[in-house]
Amino acid sequence: MLESLKIDCESPVPVYRQIAGAILDQADAGGMAAGHRLPATRDLARSLGVNRNTVVAAYDLLIRDGRARSHTGRGTFLVDPPVAEKHDDNWYGGFSQAVTGAATAGLQSIYRLAISTEGISFVGSYPADELIPVRAFERAMQKALGARGVRNLSYGPTAGQPELREAIAGRMRRDGSDVGADDVLVTNGAQQALQLVFRTFLDRGDPIAIEEPTYTGALSALESIGARPLGVPVDERGIRPDLLEVVLERQRPKLLYLQPTFHNPTTCEMDTERRQQVLELARRYRCTIVEDDWGGELRFKGQRLATLHAMDGGAHVIYVSTFSKNLMPGLRLGWLTAPTPVLRRLIELKRVQDCGTSPILQAALHAFLEEGELERHLEQTLPRYLARRDAMLTALEQSFPEGAHWTRPRGGLFIWVTLPQAIDGNDLFVTARQRGVLYSRGELFHSDGSGRHQLRLTYSAATTDEIARGVATLGQLVRERWPKDNDSRTDGETGSVEAVPIF
Amino acid sequence: MLESLKIDCESPVPVYRQIAGAILDQADAGGMAAGHRLPATRDLARSLGVNRNTVVAAYDLLIRDGRARSHTGRGTFLVDPPVAEKHDDNWYGGFSQAVTGAATAGLQSIYRLAISTEGISFVGSYPADELIPVRAFERAMQKALGARGVRNLSYGPTAGQPELREAIAGRMRRDGSDVGADDVLVTNGAQQALQLVFRTFLDRGDPIAIEEPTYTGALSALESIGARPLGVPVDERGIRPDLLEVVLERQRPKLLYLQPTFHNPTTCEMDTERRQQVLELARRYRCTIVEDDWGGELRFKGQRLATLHAMDGGAHVIYVSTFSKNLMPGLRLGWLTAPTPVLRRLIELKRVQDCGTSPILQAALHAFLEEGELERHLEQTLPRYLARRDAMLTALEQSFPEGAHWTRPRGGLFIWVTLPQAIDGNDLFVTARQRGVLYSRGELFHSDGSGRHQLRLTYSAATTDEIARGVATLGQLVRERWPKDNDSRTDGETGSVEAVPIF
Repeated sequence: MLESLKIDCESPVPVYRQIAGAILDQADAGGMAAGHRLPATRDLARSLGVNRNTVVAAYDLLIRDGRARSHTGRGTFLVDPPVAEKHDDNWYGGFSQAVTGAATAGLQSIYRLAISTEGISFVGSYPADELIPVRAFERAMQKALGARGVRNLSYGPTAGQPELREAIAGRMRRDGSDVGADDVLVTNGAQQALQLVFRTFLDRGDPIAIEEPTYTGALSALESIGARPLGVPVDERGIRPDLLEVVLERQRPKLLYLQPTFHNPTTCEMDTERRQQVLELARRYRCTIVEDDWGGELRFKGQRLATLHAMDGGAHVIYVSTFSKNLMPGLRLGWLTAPTPVLRRLIELKRVQDCGTSPILQAALHAFLEEGELERHLEQTLPRYLARRDAMLTALEQSFPEGAHWTRPRGGLFIWVTLPQAIDGNDLFVTARQRGVLYSRGELFHSDGSGRHQLRLTYSAATTDEIARGVATLGQLVRERWPKDNDSRTDGETGSVEAVPIF
Repeated sequence: MLESLKIDCESPVPVYRQIAGAILDQADAGGMAAGHRLPATRDLARSLGVNRNTVVAAYDLLIRDGRARSHTGRGTFLVDPPVAEKHDDNWYGGFSQAVTGAATAGLQSIYRLAISTEGISFVGSYPADELIPVRAFERAMQKALGARGVRNLSYGPTAGQPELREAIAGRMRRDGSDVGADDVLVTNGAQQALQLVFRTFLDRGDPIAIEEPTYTGALSALESIGARPLGVPVDERGIRPDLLEVVLERQRPKLLYLQPTFHNPTTCEMDTERRQQVLELARRYRCTIVEDDWGGELRFKGQRLATLHAMDGGAHVIYVSTFSKNLMPGLRLGWLTAPTPVLRRLIELKRVQDCGTSPILQAALHAFLEEGELERHLEQTLPRYLARRDAMLTALEQSFPEGAHWTRPRGGLFIWVTLPQAIDGNDLFVTARQRGVLYSRGELFHSDGSGRHQLRLTYSAATTDEIARGVATLGQLVRERWPKDNDSRTDGETGSVEAVPIF
């Protein structure tokens, strides 16, 4: 199989990296297990028609990355990726349940690709580099290092700097939530907020209802705790209330994790009626909602819908959001708000985990917000994202075969594409990567291993030219793999309750 | 008992706060349980000889802090402190084991006091405000926001910014450790590093050997995991090898958590021979050492001793340190280095917890280090800390009765004082607080509730004048409580293995 790998000489990805990537992708897709002896460099070089040193360089890269090991005279062998190892006999005593199993594989995969700089990337859902407001942030930082500089460089309250907590609460009040500064906990991004919430409620084996598919980072956090995610399918209006009720009634999960707005990865948005239904169900079954509103401010046009938190009065909703997507990820600043008895515990757990978030960053963000820089930034970036979304929609229309489905998001950073199930998503991904185009595989967003025929394509961080070229490449690869017979169904079994179409 | 509270009108602490503090201290000391009805404001005001509004203000403070609840017509009742609650019937579903129990009480107590600004504080072991190098840091931040500003405000690698990892590795190589940039994980302070390590190795119920007493934040992190700390007494040369061996042999803990240099709280330092003994024991029983070297750079005079990590070649030692103590806590930047198979897991767990530490802060710290600013900073601060240590030693000599013992640290930020066991540490603490002097109670550093007759007094963040006045106040209170008979033993039962003297 390796021997049949096609080298793409026109790809921006160096040949040795193409080879290493193909090996890893085959390994990750289950084609080769740990302990598998890689072909002799001479043999593989001959069958690929490349210089032997190129194969040696590919193997060296794998060894350096800890994915292969070389035994003199015996050859080069694959080793398990870090997180997939169940046991490491080289290290006595063993590890805890929190880090064994596949707990973190999904997030690892997506995060590594997201910060990769190879080729054209539709992976990382973050602001484009050229849209990062460096100078405005510099002014804000100078202010933070001014009169109160000493205070901002000392220990601060675990819950966050009072001024920033008040500014955040003010933004939430503007959106209809009845919260004050004391209701806010500043976190190191939304990921920490979610992780704190999950850990505050869930012990190993505890159930939690989730949308299927959902955010990879949430799945990873749940796996590291050992919680039991109960996937409930979504349609174009969000989570299916009829199926949600079955799960709530039968399994009585404590938590329900939702992204009602620009759901990641499907981009769907719960309408107000659906939001009311879901809130009603949560109340009836005494289930606490975790509302992840990472993208609420990334709407292209029109009014924001009321958040679940605002609709509910915050009684049974924990609200999580972040400045990573609407502003910049490098601050690692997010927040949550929760009913007081929950918030107290979240603050204590945060203190045990890292004492508190850096006060100087919080003070700089506060100065930034105070100057109205975030609104200015959004005014500049949202039209750009809209133009990129449209460029991607146009490219999909032009390049993808009839029968492929995709979404037309009203905001956010990416498009969700569904292909016929007969298309092998791993083969597509591996080949696309060799051709210099990266995207996020659908299965990373599923708790049950499904979604191999789905793709999440981020438009926010690529230029319209890159979008046109990258989508054209993908379209060509999809056409080459398009099922010849009638097996071009795009509906799939994506829920753990029963099979329903996603779109 | 409340009625007999003495109001100190000369204290810098307002009277209503003195009353609220006394109530909380009695509650924390077990004198009043949750549900206890506080005296009617009129009655308490009369017996204390204060205005009724002052008592009302004290109760309001307690209510605002969530420590009391008022029921109209029935009075004001104490409620459990957040972390002490086993169950909260107001919130359905209940919480996880990670946040129930007393998991975080110790750190909460010390951290809250540490950032308090009331009176003279010997609590927070951090640099004095006037020693924070704000301007030098501002220059470093400008550099970080310069040519690479955009990169530093985007997502970065979970393990940390390569330049900072290399700078940290370089500092460790200077101290004899054989590490490269790839061996370093940048964390949000040492607290996150310890928490990651503990969670990577320990499941609920797993044993870990610790020094008794030890760092409160480590105890809190262990309790939140549900690990079982096995306290091994320390003498003036550090952990007792004979007792350590008993624990290692009988209980086979996976981890041994140590602070070989300027041990917190006892300030003792392991000499080289003892370090060798401990390393030898760890090897024999296949126990991984977690070396917390938070204060290694805070030595007043002379050469640093080789770290356990350097002596061991890093084979069985995970090394943790921080820039919070030698530089400034507001950065929330620490690090760890670990053998490769362990480090991989730590990185994955860090990714699940918060994706990674803020790149912009890391870049600023790197620029700061590159300019030699940390060395300059240490040259300026260490003589100041030494002067403050000496001022505190002098004040102790002058004010404390013969028979009280204290340490003479060769570095670090505090002094450890041991009084006769007959002295009621809670009463002393409560009264000192009323008189406007704060310190850390010894029991916060013990896993077994002992240490009530011990005090940790931080000198780093107080002026020499404050030190003189604060220690004089404490000395007077200690004299007033000094046992009249022969019961002035200062040796105590501080280990969980057998009773041995601490000093």
